[in-house]
Amino acid sequence: MAGPRSLPLLGPACCAPLVRAPLDAATAADLARTLKALADPARLRLLSMVAAHDGGEACVCDLTEPLGLTQPTVSHHLKVLVDAGLLTRDKRGVWAYYALVPGALDAVAAVLSSQTAPVG
Amino acid sequence: MAGPRSLPLLGPACCAPLVRAPLDAATAADLARTLKALADPARLRLLSMVAAHDGGEACVCDLTEPLGLTQPTVSHHLKVLVDAGLLTRDKRGVWAYYALVPGALDAVAAVLSSQTAPVG
Repeated sequence: MAGPRSLPLLGPACCAPLVRAPLDAATAADLARTLKALADPARLRLLSMVAAHDGGEACVCDLTEPLGLTQPTVSHHLKVLVDAGLLTRDKRGVWAYYALVPGALDAVAAVLSSQTAPVG
Repeated sequence: MAGPRSLPLLGPACCAPLVRAPLDAATAADLARTLKALADPARLRLLSMVAAHDGGEACVCDLTEPLGLTQPTVSHHLKVLVDAGLLTRDKRGVWAYYALVPGALDAVAAVLSSQTAPVG
């Protein structure tokens, strides 16, 4: 698996709604990869819990108990989300802190929405 | 596999952005199921081609050539999208015609977006 990468959807193809014009193969492949990272109940809840946490960031230590999963399982899911360009990871002391990549979920939403997203 | 079903995201839990408040387990499971149906390049292109087609509907006969896939493969992907509540299927004569379920993609976009969706 590749390491962390920037979200291709944040590039020039960003935000053109798929219902407006046929998706090209490259954009469809990028979007499918991101959606695959999102398409898991535990990962969706993790994203949501990280976003809702104090200061918009959380460590594994904050996330295992509310989800009822082990620390290695939570760490695995967090790594998938980092690799997909949806979370950032910042190691400070013994813990790594995770936060949403600004605009990443909105970019996915903009492609799925029938509304043209505001630019800027 | 279950047959066609209405999209649970269009129910009462519809459209609350996941970044605003932690997703509950049932909503996360429903959303993950829908995202799994979307998380495939061929299915994303099919949705996009159906939406962009004359009258907002298309039959398998319209979709195989531009995608470069066989008719059974295209039919399989269309069935996954119908089962996920994202496409409707209307059999007329020898062909079945597919169209987007109104609001279904917007409901997914609304949960992923950080903006609260307009209601109504």
